[in-house]
Amino acid sequence: MATKTMNVGMIGYKFMGKAHSNAYRQVARFFPELQVVPVMKALCGRDEAGVKKAADTFGWESYETDWRKLIARPDIDIIDIGAPGNMHAEIAIAAAQAGKHVFCEKPLGNSAEEAKRMLDAAVAAGVYHMIWFNYRANPAVSYAKKLITDGYLGKIYHWRALFLQDWIVDPQFPLVWRLQKEVAGSGSHGDLLAHCLDTARYLVGEIAEVSGLLETFIKQRPELAESDDRLGGKASDTMGEVTVDDASLALARFENGALGTFEATRFALGRKNHNRFEINGSKGSVVFNAERPNELEIYTEDTLAGTHGFRTVSVTSGQDRYTGHYWPTAHNIGYEHTFTDLLFDAFTAMGEGKNPSPNFHDGYLNNVLLDTIAHSAETKRWEAVTL
Amino acid sequence: MATKTMNVGMIGYKFMGKAHSNAYRQVARFFPELQVVPVMKALCGRDEAGVKKAADTFGWESYETDWRKLIARPDIDIIDIGAPGNMHAEIAIAAAQAGKHVFCEKPLGNSAEEAKRMLDAAVAAGVYHMIWFNYRANPAVSYAKKLITDGYLGKIYHWRALFLQDWIVDPQFPLVWRLQKEVAGSGSHGDLLAHCLDTARYLVGEIAEVSGLLETFIKQRPELAESDDRLGGKASDTMGEVTVDDASLALARFENGALGTFEATRFALGRKNHNRFEINGSKGSVVFNAERPNELEIYTEDTLAGTHGFRTVSVTSGQDRYTGHYWPTAHNIGYEHTFTDLLFDAFTAMGEGKNPSPNFHDGYLNNVLLDTIAHSAETKRWEAVTL
Amino acid sequence: MATKTMNVGMIGYKFMGKAHSNAYRQVARFFPELQVVPVMKALCGRDEAGVKKAADTFGWESYETDWRKLIARPDIDIIDIGAPGNMHAEIAIAAAQAGKHVFCEKPLGNSAEEAKRMLDAAVAAGVYHMIWFNYRANPAVSYAKKLITDGYLGKIYHWRALFLQDWIVDPQFPLVWRLQKEVAGSGSHGDLLAHCLDTARYLVGEIAEVSGLLETFIKQRPELAESDDRLGGKASDTMGEVTVDDASLALARFENGALGTFEATRFALGRKNHNRFEINGSKGSVVFNAERPNELEIYTEDTLAGTHGFRTVSVTSGQDRYTGHYWPTAHNIGYEHTFTDLLFDAFTAMGEGKNPSPNFHDGYLNNVLLDTIAHSAETKRWEAVTL
Amino acid sequence: MATKTMNVGMIGYKFMGKAHSNAYRQVARFFPELQVVPVMKALCGRDEAGVKKAADTFGWESYETDWRKLIARPDIDIIDIGAPGNMHAEIAIAAAQAGKHVFCEKPLGNSAEEAKRMLDAAVAAGVYHMIWFNYRANPAVSYAKKLITDGYLGKIYHWRALFLQDWIVDPQFPLVWRLQKEVAGSGSHGDLLAHCLDTARYLVGEIAEVSGLLETFIKQRPELAESDDRLGGKASDTMGEVTVDDASLALARFENGALGTFEATRFALGRKNHNRFEINGSKGSVVFNAERPNELEIYTEDTLAGTHGFRTVSVTSGQDRYTGHYWPTAHNIGYEHTFTDLLFDAFTAMGEGKNPSPNFHDGYLNNVLLDTIAHSAETKRWEAVTL
Repeated sequence: MATKTMNVGMIGYKFMGKAHSNAYRQVARFFPELQVVPVMKALCGRDEAGVKKAADTFGWESYETDWRKLIARPDIDIIDIGAPGNMHAEIAIAAAQAGKHVFCEKPLGNSAEEAKRMLDAAVAAGVYHMIWFNYRANPAVSYAKKLITDGYLGKIYHWRALFLQDWIVDPQFPLVWRLQKEVAGSGSHGDLLAHCLDTARYLVGEIAEVSGLLETFIKQRPELAESDDRLGGKASDTMGEVTVDDASLALARFENGALGTFEATRFALGRKNHNRFEINGSKGSVVFNAERPNELEIYTEDTLAGTHGFRTVSVTSGQDRYTGHYWPTAHNIGYEHTFTDLLFDAFTAMGEGKNPSPNFHDGYLNNVLLDTIAHSAETKRWEAVTL
Repeated sequence: MATKTMNVGMIGYKFMGKAHSNAYRQVARFFPELQVVPVMKALCGRDEAGVKKAADTFGWESYETDWRKLIARPDIDIIDIGAPGNMHAEIAIAAAQAGKHVFCEKPLGNSAEEAKRMLDAAVAAGVYHMIWFNYRANPAVSYAKKLITDGYLGKIYHWRALFLQDWIVDPQFPLVWRLQKEVAGSGSHGDLLAHCLDTARYLVGEIAEVSGLLETFIKQRPELAESDDRLGGKASDTMGEVTVDDASLALARFENGALGTFEATRFALGRKNHNRFEINGSKGSVVFNAERPNELEIYTEDTLAGTHGFRTVSVTSGQDRYTGHYWPTAHNIGYEHTFTDLLFDAFTAMGEGKNPSPNFHDGYLNNVLLDTIAHSAETKRWEAVTL
Repeated sequence: MATKTMNVGMIGYKFMGKAHSNAYRQVARFFPELQVVPVMKALCGRDEAGVKKAADTFGWESYETDWRKLIARPDIDIIDIGAPGNMHAEIAIAAAQAGKHVFCEKPLGNSAEEAKRMLDAAVAAGVYHMIWFNYRANPAVSYAKKLITDGYLGKIYHWRALFLQDWIVDPQFPLVWRLQKEVAGSGSHGDLLAHCLDTARYLVGEIAEVSGLLETFIKQRPELAESDDRLGGKASDTMGEVTVDDASLALARFENGALGTFEATRFALGRKNHNRFEINGSKGSVVFNAERPNELEIYTEDTLAGTHGFRTVSVTSGQDRYTGHYWPTAHNIGYEHTFTDLLFDAFTAMGEGKNPSPNFHDGYLNNVLLDTIAHSAETKRWEAVTL
Repeated sequence: MATKTMNVGMIGYKFMGKAHSNAYRQVARFFPELQVVPVMKALCGRDEAGVKKAADTFGWESYETDWRKLIARPDIDIIDIGAPGNMHAEIAIAAAQAGKHVFCEKPLGNSAEEAKRMLDAAVAAGVYHMIWFNYRANPAVSYAKKLITDGYLGKIYHWRALFLQDWIVDPQFPLVWRLQKEVAGSGSHGDLLAHCLDTARYLVGEIAEVSGLLETFIKQRPELAESDDRLGGKASDTMGEVTVDDASLALARFENGALGTFEATRFALGRKNHNRFEINGSKGSVVFNAERPNELEIYTEDTLAGTHGFRTVSVTSGQDRYTGHYWPTAHNIGYEHTFTDLLFDAFTAMGEGKNPSPNFHDGYLNNVLLDTIAHSAETKRWEAVTL
């Protein structure tokens, strides 16, 4: 099948741990042409009972409870970091210094400064590095990229991004780690807006300046008594401070003259995972919505006059670079496949001796944008994006 | 403005009376190029207080309470029949014999036999005749016709029509005239399926044979105590027999080899006026839904490969023959405009000395189809459509 | 029918002239309960042939070519201003000083200063004043207002407004008056964003501070050789300067703590009249899109758990205060009806001796917001909204 | 992890082979509570190079090229039949007689007579039997079933099913096995309508009588030169006879009085996998479309009066019995998961010592319906469904 394997050690076994595990398990099943394939060597988490059970369920050969031990294992080639944001920098730098390739969840750091150190460490060590901006690998997004690159949309005038969720509208929703700045770094800003910013860079280009706005609507919540399998848990009787943003917004000017809007929130009742963008160019427009991830809406004027309109295109028939590997046209794939697709890209690159894309450089630029927007929200001025 | 006027006498002043009145009042305002324009001469209804008030509200110069007197008036050129179905034949024939042009609501007769006599009378008298199949004059339907005529959809394989409503799902909804065979002729069959059948003939062609199914789900209802302004009223304590169908369905083969499905019902909860059709041809497909009457969904494959999809086209920019007379693109028109548009067509034709289209010939063929489907529902066999 | 009439003199006979004329002609036909009804006395425009023809087509009794003469006519009770923005102030003030009631198109002035003088003049004269923010009178918007007022959506967290068009994406589209600052005052800003701002105030409340962004993508265009009936015309060979914005964006904080985004553009290819807003509250969300004006999307959680979702509600069944006057449920009304509905509100108010709403006060506040956003776009800072 | 394993031998390695393989590989990863889990023992196909490669790619331990040898292997507990329809009966009966549990693709037989023999053989052998009506296990369909069972939709009046595809509209599409009666048994009828019929039985109940219509639009096609990985291949120069239907339609009466419509076609240009149904009951309606498989549209009237409408519900939050095992709300799953879910149901049943559902009894009843519709299409009469 493949000529080479790489052994993966994965840190984190909850939501992202499950998603990454699935991708490692599946990637060579759907992309048998890969020349480098991952082996699910070890899963790492602090709670032994939890990580043991997860390793068994997800299909890992072994488990560890100390990430330093994982890095120290000579049979591990790649360290994949799915731990909370405050641990990214320390782990990634240690892993790189130990000569491991490093894959990391987004946002890369909890600040641009952290991210820069991570990037520098990876570059200095000469290891491969990848960041899990999985929406880039959604077939409809990937196809939008192709259309833009091919000039099908013309010159871009507008970018309009939303990432709307509603899972904390209830003031009684407890103070989980994602609502604590010292762990998560930020709220909707780094969790959701980070995706929009990366997709914007991927599809439209670099951002020159921003005007930001961050808000925390509910400033105190019950502390967490016990976390559940998904994002929440049981509330305790004591209240704690919410230290991250509930909503994050920005206006932007891209370097190429396009205008952008960005809005992420966890307070849009009825919107569950509404990661949507619209791009308007001089020759066409596209709309993507992660709630209908197999569709891209496309508007151009290259049909009979009078018949123009946004068309709902099923991106499942191999017109992108992923879907030809799955099922016949209109037999949909789902959320988990974005991770599989990203691994396909990463292992393809590594098979050719190249660094994956997106990588820590993209992660660093993403952190710079997050910081600049947050800074602008404080100064209440437009701020230029500077490295 | 126009070079000639024609005086209209209208019978009926409820729902259809209001819709027709509006069309007479508005047609020359939006289509000032008309060479023949209507004058709202007299409105006719049995209840004097009611018809007087309606005439005043809708803008008629006078009123009558006896349709025979209306026909006898020498200042009336056109008799417009908006009365219940059981009165159509008698009035239309009398009007034609008196030398009046006749416009009539659909279905033309309560049977094909009635419709044939009406057609024969109008032809014998040499008067103009028109039938209010108003959906033909919906801009999106009219534009679909143009696309088909121009060959843009290729050879037609499938016609798929629904007309779904839900206003009598409640078993306590009273026994209004529309639920009584001796007045209405039929239920969903003549009220709703008749529209689908006409649109099918208009867009696809003549139907060769059918297999029908009619059903009455609720066989008894409270009798009507007092009707309201819309379609219902207050229920009384006594029960009466429902003598019309609640739902009407058919499979069909068109003469050109296309297959058709038809379904009309008043028992589709949540569907309010869901008059929808889909046409699949060898080169393209279109979808229309009267609940979004300014839109036509169009699918063709004349864009870049990979970007095909149904496109939502706003038929408001003058690509049909009506919308250029109203507002700028995407500034919608509504239900009432279908009547205005139909009058535009009718008075344009009459200005050129031609009979309007659709006319009593279309009404007669429509009644033949209704009868054949009902007959097939009884024989439980496919039945050929014969004149 | 009605107990009193008021004679209208209307200035302007193109797009807005046609829309207002239709509303005057129709309002008492659909709202016969009105105690004060308009009489279409005189239409005014500079080009005699044009205004004469329009008066005839639209149904006005007479015409004038000089607005001062119109104001001077003793048989005129109401002056309705549909002329370009740079004429609003002079006409409105003169009309008020002559004791005429004044209706005016939006934006009220070409600056807040102008608008303030207009408001002051109307108040000083004790006349009625109204501004044509017609989207307030769209049934779906009106119903959203009712739901918010009744507390059905809870506390509002987010307002998200777009007004997207594409009619000037082509760089060869000529320099019509709407692209000239000295006539139109601004571009998408006053033409489109003004509507969003008014609807925001109507539905969410007053805005405390804004961060704005204005952009002109195409800075020179061919001068206009001859205007057509709609928004464009023929291009000449010489180029001229575009002096208004092509796009206008803002972030906002409302006084009640809600966050708002606003974006208007004429460069969103495929979007024809995409006047859309979404509101997220603690108990529910609503979405409106003027391209589907009879629909309101509503999300609440008062159904069975597990069955929650945005529901597409047909606002045509009398649940607002307008649609009960038109047609049965799901028999749509269109763009023109928003003007009719607004007149219904205005004449209802005047029949009760009250000033209409929205009025010059709303127009003035709207101009203040426009000016503040434009100012912020220059200072590149958040700016507080101050009167 | 689980207390027991069952060894699977799978016949067929193209489209269905890939889908089933994925399900076996994944089911215990997402449903770790299973007490019986499958082991991917052997894959079987006639072409050794092909099956060897597929076994390697999909993760099977071994392969066979003769299904009789597979059945003879003592280490195989379950025979899964993904071969073309004309081989189902012989294989299934042999497997059952050899004491193997049997899973089989749909339609079960190429006739009701075949299906009956398969059912009888499995029952006689006392083995478990299952049929891959995978759409039953789509979360949105499963949730619709729950809502109906709980009475949330009330009494059912209407069932309306479509399964529209367009992959053979091109007359040059070659004569693949799916277009040959002696292999496939039928065309759209057994391939597509079979799904609609099963879902109808699952959700609404047994069908009493039908009126059918089958049609072959393109009667000759180029013979196949070489098949591709998906559904088509290269055309040769010689023409062959199409011996199956291109479209299959039926009207139906259910035993409980509901009316049904069914339409399957491969000639609906633009419809790729449009497996859609709508159910209208006395208390509510639901709509499903496999092109948006994570959504169920639901209409009920249990919200505030005036706010009723079809709501788009994301069936991803654990409200059915599958999605709680995958990802957070609105993180979609895809086509392949319906197979995984069906295995979850099957192995859950077997873990409790019960036969899976759906099973050969459902397969047999499905074949009876297919035969009755085809018979009705010949007699051109309504035909009763009899066993």
